[in-house]
Amino acid sequence: MKYKIIFSYDGTHFSGYQKQENQRTVQSEIERVLSQINNESVRISASGRTDAGVHAIGQVAHFTTTKNWNPKKLQHALNSLLPEDIYIKTTEVVNENFHARFDVTKKEYIYMINIKEYNPLERNYIYQYGKSLDSKAIEEAIPYFVGTHNYKAFTKVGEEKENYIRTIYEIKLEEKQGILILHFLGNGFLRYMVRNIVGTLIEIGAGKRSYKDINSILESEDRKQAGITAPPCGLYLYKVYYEELEKEKMPHS
Amino acid sequence: MKYKIIFSYDGTHFSGYQKQENQRTVQSEIERVLSQINNESVRISASGRTDAGVHAIGQVAHFTTTKNWNPKKLQHALNSLLPEDIYIKTTEVVNENFHARFDVTKKEYIYMINIKEYNPLERNYIYQYGKSLDSKAIEEAIPYFVGTHNYKAFTKVGEEKENYIRTIYEIKLEEKQGILILHFLGNGFLRYMVRNIVGTLIEIGAGKRSYKDINSILESEDRKQAGITAPPCGLYLYKVYYEELEKEKMPHS
Repeated sequence: MKYKIIFSYDGTHFSGYQKQENQRTVQSEIERVLSQINNESVRISASGRTDAGVHAIGQVAHFTTTKNWNPKKLQHALNSLLPEDIYIKTTEVVNENFHARFDVTKKEYIYMINIKEYNPLERNYIYQYGKSLDSKAIEEAIPYFVGTHNYKAFTKVGEEKENYIRTIYEIKLEEKQGILILHFLGNGFLRYMVRNIVGTLIEIGAGKRSYKDINSILESEDRKQAGITAPPCGLYLYKVYYEELEKEKMPHS
Repeated sequence: MKYKIIFSYDGTHFSGYQKQENQRTVQSEIERVLSQINNESVRISASGRTDAGVHAIGQVAHFTTTKNWNPKKLQHALNSLLPEDIYIKTTEVVNENFHARFDVTKKEYIYMINIKEYNPLERNYIYQYGKSLDSKAIEEAIPYFVGTHNYKAFTKVGEEKENYIRTIYEIKLEEKQGILILHFLGNGFLRYMVRNIVGTLIEIGAGKRSYKDINSILESEDRKQAGITAPPCGLYLYKVYYEELEKEKMPHS
């Protein structure tokens, strides 16, 4: 049977989502538990990886097992054996054709920035920028990042891809008690792309750059033209959308 | 010179506030850094201890140094050398007579309970109760804990004290997006007292006990009559009040 799981994790103590030798990763923890309860080696395929320190509220993966599971029982078995920084939110049987990565239609990320003074209790969950930012200037810059663009200047250096063109449908900025929350909705994001856009927006909010630079940075296709990479702790993979959900709105719209 | 500091910390990775041999504690971290920057051994006195895993948003302490510091410079020196889970929020010069423990007039604690499903991102900061609770029943029980009582039944077993009488001025319950937040304001709290009251309120909210039990539990002076000790991760020392602040209201009133 083929199953789809939606799960959350605290990325703080993981070397990222993807399996790597001798590293604690989300994928290897889930595969270890799945293999244990199925008495066979089980591999999972997620919607995409997340880097070390990045969190997930709604990561999605699929896997196939010989054993037939009641989805609720499978969820409980997994949660009782997984470490406390991973939690399986839903488990369902899916069609043999479903693929957690290839079938993605949209992805939603959130990035949180504390513009008040440092808070040790948030240090792993909200980027502790610790100074004020001009949210009007950030609002003004946002539309220049939305649309279909070649985002090569905003991906990780050395990340070779056939295609750097992606579409961002929407970027929204909220402010709640001194915390800036940026929502990103797009058809896909290159590695470090959200964090590099956030880093550039922070430089704009700090008055170090202008929205007028964005078009030329995009056109340059040169990582060095863009801003810093915002730290991983502020980033959350919030939701992954598939075809049947395509008509859904962003939950915060 | 004598200084008063207000500081916050994430209790997750500390064996509590108070210094203990071969343990990582908040007190020993601050004393180590203070001694280092003053080139002399500096001891600090806090408003009281917090147990392992308990957090602070506004803990207070005093200390004396031979060196004269500009308070802002002292704050920066401390924050640049302290580990990232402690943060000095304010530093001020105080009268020689000030005592961070003896001069306390009121203390305010907060306890947070998640009554929605488990969230791995909150596991060290909000008690993951994970089931619904009847907040009406909790509201109904709260007044029985308020007032001047002998709270021996709600302190840690074996915690010998001359006097178990304390006054709770106010307990308030808020609910925000599936999180119950209890505020406690009192003239002082015995060890485990807030957590044991919370544990009893949870049992009342779960329908396992009634508000009618509270008076007889208090009268019994017997720890075994009260409810479970709620876990430390949900507890925050929120604010410590001194005489000059006595007329202040609870910030959330």
